Amino acid sequence: MSDIEIGRGKRGKRAWAFDDIAVVPSRRTRDPQDVSTSWSIDAYQFDLPVLAAPMDSVVSPETAIKIGKLGGLGVLDLEGLWTRYEEPTKYLDEIAKLPADKATARMQEIYREPVKAELIRDRLAQIRAAGVTVAGALSPQRTAEFHDTVVKAGVDIFVIRGTTVSAEHVSKSSEPLNLKQFIYELDVPVIVGGAATYTAALHLMRTGAAGVLVGFGGGAASTTRTVLGIHAPMATAVADVAGARRDYMDESGGRYVHVIADGGLGTSGDIVKAISCGADAVMLGSVLARATDAPGQGWHWGQEAFHSELPRGKRVEVSSKFDLEQILLGPSTEADGTSNLMGALRRSMATTGYSDLKEFQRVDVVVAPYDAH
Amino acid sequence: MSDIEIGRGKRGKRAWAFDDIAVVPSRRTRDPQDVSTSWSIDAYQFDLPVLAAPMDSVVSPETAIKIGKLGGLGVLDLEGLWTRYEEPTKYLDEIAKLPADKATARMQEIYREPVKAELIRDRLAQIRAAGVTVAGALSPQRTAEFHDTVVKAGVDIFVIRGTTVSAEHVSKSSEPLNLKQFIYELDVPVIVGGAATYTAALHLMRTGAAGVLVGFGGGAASTTRTVLGIHAPMATAVADVAGARRDYMDESGGRYVHVIADGGLGTSGDIVKAISCGADAVMLGSVLARATDAPGQGWHWGQEAFHSELPRGKRVEVSSKFDLEQILLGPSTEADGTSNLMGALRRSMATTGYSDLKEFQRVDVVVAPYDAH
Amino acid sequence: MSDIEIGRGKRGKRAWAFDDIAVVPSRRTRDPQDVSTSWSIDAYQFDLPVLAAPMDSVVSPETAIKIGKLGGLGVLDLEGLWTRYEEPTKYLDEIAKLPADKATARMQEIYREPVKAELIRDRLAQIRAAGVTVAGALSPQRTAEFHDTVVKAGVDIFVIRGTTVSAEHVSKSSEPLNLKQFIYELDVPVIVGGAATYTAALHLMRTGAAGVLVGFGGGAASTTRTVLGIHAPMATAVADVAGARRDYMDESGGRYVHVIADGGLGTSGDIVKAISCGADAVMLGSVLARATDAPGQGWHWGQEAFHSELPRGKRVEVSSKFDLEQILLGPSTEADGTSNLMGALRRSMATTGYSDLKEFQRVDVVVAPYDAH
Amino acid sequence: MSDIEIGRGKRGKRAWAFDDIAVVPSRRTRDPQDVSTSWSIDAYQFDLPVLAAPMDSVVSPETAIKIGKLGGLGVLDLEGLWTRYEEPTKYLDEIAKLPADKATARMQEIYREPVKAELIRDRLAQIRAAGVTVAGALSPQRTAEFHDTVVKAGVDIFVIRGTTVSAEHVSKSSEPLNLKQFIYELDVPVIVGGAATYTAALHLMRTGAAGVLVGFGGGAASTTRTVLGIHAPMATAVADVAGARRDYMDESGGRYVHVIADGGLGTSGDIVKAISCGADAVMLGSVLARATDAPGQGWHWGQEAFHSELPRGKRVEVSSKFDLEQILLGPSTEADGTSNLMGALRRSMATTGYSDLKEFQRVDVVVAPYDAH
Repeated sequence: MSDIEIGRGKRGKRAWAFDDIAVVPSRRTRDPQDVSTSWSIDAYQFDLPVLAAPMDSVVSPETAIKIGKLGGLGVLDLEGLWTRYEEPTKYLDEIAKLPADKATARMQEIYREPVKAELIRDRLAQIRAAGVTVAGALSPQRTAEFHDTVVKAGVDIFVIRGTTVSAEHVSKSSEPLNLKQFIYELDVPVIVGGAATYTAALHLMRTGAAGVLVGFGGGAASTTRTVLGIHAPMATAVADVAGARRDYMDESGGRYVHVIADGGLGTSGDIVKAISCGADAVMLGSVLARATDAPGQGWHWGQEAFHSELPRGKRVEVSSKFDLEQILLGPSTEADGTSNLMGALRRSMATTGYSDLKEFQRVDVVVAPYDAH
Repeated sequence: MSDIEIGRGKRGKRAWAFDDIAVVPSRRTRDPQDVSTSWSIDAYQFDLPVLAAPMDSVVSPETAIKIGKLGGLGVLDLEGLWTRYEEPTKYLDEIAKLPADKATARMQEIYREPVKAELIRDRLAQIRAAGVTVAGALSPQRTAEFHDTVVKAGVDIFVIRGTTVSAEHVSKSSEPLNLKQFIYELDVPVIVGGAATYTAALHLMRTGAAGVLVGFGGGAASTTRTVLGIHAPMATAVADVAGARRDYMDESGGRYVHVIADGGLGTSGDIVKAISCGADAVMLGSVLARATDAPGQGWHWGQEAFHSELPRGKRVEVSSKFDLEQILLGPSTEADGTSNLMGALRRSMATTGYSDLKEFQRVDVVVAPYDAH
Repeated sequence: MSDIEIGRGKRGKRAWAFDDIAVVPSRRTRDPQDVSTSWSIDAYQFDLPVLAAPMDSVVSPETAIKIGKLGGLGVLDLEGLWTRYEEPTKYLDEIAKLPADKATARMQEIYREPVKAELIRDRLAQIRAAGVTVAGALSPQRTAEFHDTVVKAGVDIFVIRGTTVSAEHVSKSSEPLNLKQFIYELDVPVIVGGAATYTAALHLMRTGAAGVLVGFGGGAASTTRTVLGIHAPMATAVADVAGARRDYMDESGGRYVHVIADGGLGTSGDIVKAISCGADAVMLGSVLARATDAPGQGWHWGQEAFHSELPRGKRVEVSSKFDLEQILLGPSTEADGTSNLMGALRRSMATTGYSDLKEFQRVDVVVAPYDAH
Repeated sequence: MSDIEIGRGKRGKRAWAFDDIAVVPSRRTRDPQDVSTSWSIDAYQFDLPVLAAPMDSVVSPETAIKIGKLGGLGVLDLEGLWTRYEEPTKYLDEIAKLPADKATARMQEIYREPVKAELIRDRLAQIRAAGVTVAGALSPQRTAEFHDTVVKAGVDIFVIRGTTVSAEHVSKSSEPLNLKQFIYELDVPVIVGGAATYTAALHLMRTGAAGVLVGFGGGAASTTRTVLGIHAPMATAVADVAGARRDYMDESGGRYVHVIADGGLGTSGDIVKAISCGADAVMLGSVLARATDAPGQGWHWGQEAFHSELPRGKRVEVSSKFDLEQILLGPSTEADGTSNLMGALRRSMATTGYSDLKEFQRVDVVVAPYDAH
């Protein structure tokens, strides 16, 4: 971490965003139909390297099933509307209609309703009944309280997701979650994050996690850089965590921890770049919230937007034209990188000559940040 | 390819666009009229280092003849409207009048009409009859099907052009074109591309091509970077391929392969920079589509814009004020770099003290990307 | 100072602004409530590392008291309206209502009224009576004339503030302030600045100052870069001066001089970055002038804006929504980094795993200037 | 010239504009009134390091006299309206009133009138009669034809100015000006340029020139970068030429050639930076054309804007508020760096601790291009 001198008393590393880089062709090309985009984590195999983010504007039990059938993995937020309310759709309807000046206050209210264990159980059962892989997410703060419920409900993949999750949380007021022990005792594979640096990710890998989410609230619904001064440009974050995966594989004698880019993925081009930097899969939020059949009904938000003392983000309007299937698999009638995401990935791999995701992590990239075209 | 650390697991080379660089004067100046802009490929000599791109908005048989008489080379798209329809002008007229929301769908339809061998033959015959050098372009996918027709029709220069063309295309479903054997057996010189990197270009040179097109759909009618995450800034791409030309000349015992910049050339300043980076000539699209006598009638498009599943580009409006002759040779009454392109090239060479294109490839350049003036 | 060649005859160091950098998480996280933001200078301890800038739009005796009670330090400008007029509020009212085209001329007039020693005494007495730490500021030009008055009035902390203050001012026409002797003879701790470079700050530290203000009129109310060509990007300036603090500590056998960032601090994120570069505290201007209870009533200005021959800045309108308490301590209902500044600092420290300000100066930073998100 | 790899076949040096750099304070400060801005060239001494550019919108005989009395040097264009017409003011009036769409064509016409030797003589006599230093400019193309007239008319300083002037102009059609012999035989000191690189400037210095103009049509009235692809960012150009001055001083045994920045100087901050990079003086165009008493009457243009085949620039409107005296010496009532240019230079020198221009060339500069504030 010491490439550039900020001033005599401080050095910092240069970090790069997806917008700063691009992949370049090599000497070989392929047919897009010969390319595989499949990946697997633990015993679960997926046709698409896509996890839908546990956010109420993106994943409901219904869209979790739909995304699962399309080949991805929908992760339900187990602290969202679906586990707070018996009938959440009426709140989704209300949120979609809130005037801008009332939205924050009313949504703070709506999210004050407690999470209910029986609803966690019911929602996960509904997804399981459809025959797709079942995944649910808790924040680190709630994991101790609800993980039993979640595991008993029969989750396949357990996601612990916060803006920043560390392997070593220090608290004077409460006993923090001991991630290592928790994961060791759990029967299901755990994906945990966000982590944005080599060191943070390496420590998370040592807890036994099956996957690490790379990111730090860098998505469309957050203003972390302005408010907290914290920012982890995603190309560097993913490449740093991929470096940690490689080093951890060596120190663990071969355990491969999956790296999942989470945030800053607004176009198919960004997905391509995430994988080129070493990601095994991507977690998508706003780009799926745009779907005509997404629960957000044209709106997207994260829970940190409604923090009572220090909101960091807000409900944002997202234009909707395609459904989840068209967004993921096409066909596309727009050339802006927000539909047929997997077709674009496939073509990018073919054009640069790679036939599977793991190989594609080795594609050449260039740094070209100044070009606004 | 390892100058910059993106993160611990990834390195990338810095790449530069034409906008990032500029040429600078040396210690000598010359008179513009003493400067030569001529170049030759195989037995064909041209006064201007300009190829008109095989796109329906730029080259018709008529403009191919006009450009040939002005000293350049018009390359006809042999898979465009002129070889699909007996009377293509009515479709050009229709395209120019399509409302924005109908354009993509209707143009997909129009381009569904099959290409006809007899029309290839007739169009090329028409150009040949005018006494100018005859050049036609096919995509790699169609080359096997139509090259016999093309060669028998008496083409002088054969162009194989795709977004990315590699010397080694791998396909499970079809027998790909063996470029090396194909070029070896052909009687006419072949120009092939796009290639955007040193390695890709070097392999294309080894196929026996007379010229390599440098670029990757980076023109005005494409959104490749956003959709595919692929981007090859042109100053670096041209300079890399020029490096491949030098190395290939050494390995081949002196065969000189022509480097033709194709894409990102919006002004005379860009043409100057392409040559300063090592290009022997430039292939121009949108800047010629602007001509009052261009077939696009104020519109410009590439075929990838109408891909049925993953369109990457669209029909764009281009302002028209000058005809092809004024755009290429002047006189100019605007100072925006879009007319009298060759007069500007000539003056730039004179001001920096060079008398022919090959010498001018050695002009000093500076990197100065931040200056928006 | 010689990293980059500007040209053959000149070299310069690269310098970075707060916008160019960001802090990144480490392997540990904490609870925000376990974090301390306290600091002390000489015998004076503060809960918040915040000094309110001695500007009429920010600090009146009343807001100095308010800020003191909230845990910060309000520094009264002893050459502003409060020491020129018995009844300054009517001039504040007038300034807030001046039409744009009359503002400069009228304010030049208003600030022509002489400073009065008895008003300095009365204003400081009023602050002292409220039981908070008392701080007042003079420019270097006026320090000789009024420092006796100020010290006798019972100031706790003496601030000498100008756009650039050096330890060695050279003048042919007047005897300049001998800072070293002056500070030596004074009974109270002195904070002095602005200084923007390692060398300038090191010399100020050798005068015996307790603190150094880092900056150069880089705030919202100044156009120094355009007019004077002078600019000291704050991240580099703070880190350079922090380097001087470290070196001076060594040469002085352990004297710790406080580094206070002064300028360019428009958001909580900027405050976070200032401390990450080595600042012990920050001096805030425009961000506090925005308060509904600030004396500027929606306007912000510095005295250099009314220089009679070479104005460098102007009265700027600042939007007002929160009061001083909400701006400093929250709660916040906006996510733009201009309210709950200390809550944001606390959360940033917690998220990156640090428990006090001195430790937080070691947080990792990245250089990421291109990302506008 | 080989710092950065553009691509395998090309390297280029990084170049910097004035906007990319800034000067920074040192450990000392001074009083502005103790600072000297005087400079001399040959036997001529000036209070201000300012030459007014030989452009019809800036210098008439009348403003040459005015600028001379203020302490600068007005250079009359000896190929402009004043030497083509007995009564040029009516054409200046007409130009100021031309509608945008007619301006280029009509101005091409107006400048077709031949230059007359007797008018050169009369205009220079008028300036001489006022008792100020007399300077006139010719283009290299016209120097052979008119230099006798100019010298006999009693010019003090002879300026040869073109977009690029080299010591070695090569022409097949005409005998080019032999600068070395010409300057050797002339009795008066010669200032010659533009030159934008170390090598070009070194060769010009070897011709015996007293001063070199640094620039390449980079001013407000030119679009050279877009049209010709040529661009020489000024900070680097000035510093490179200052390096040539130093090396030439060594090789010539002590001859000091003056370096005059010409172009890209839109604010007092730019003037400060030009001198910080090594300029001895600046030649100002648009910033003086803004004067209420400038001959352009609110418009600014260069002659290259009316080139009949390849215009590179146009007539631009410039806002006018101050007269020449206020622009050069103040007082100023705006803080945008376009008035009281010399007051700002003086204050910048004082603030950074320098007392004369030659010393100020050593001031520290930083590279800080990303900061738009």
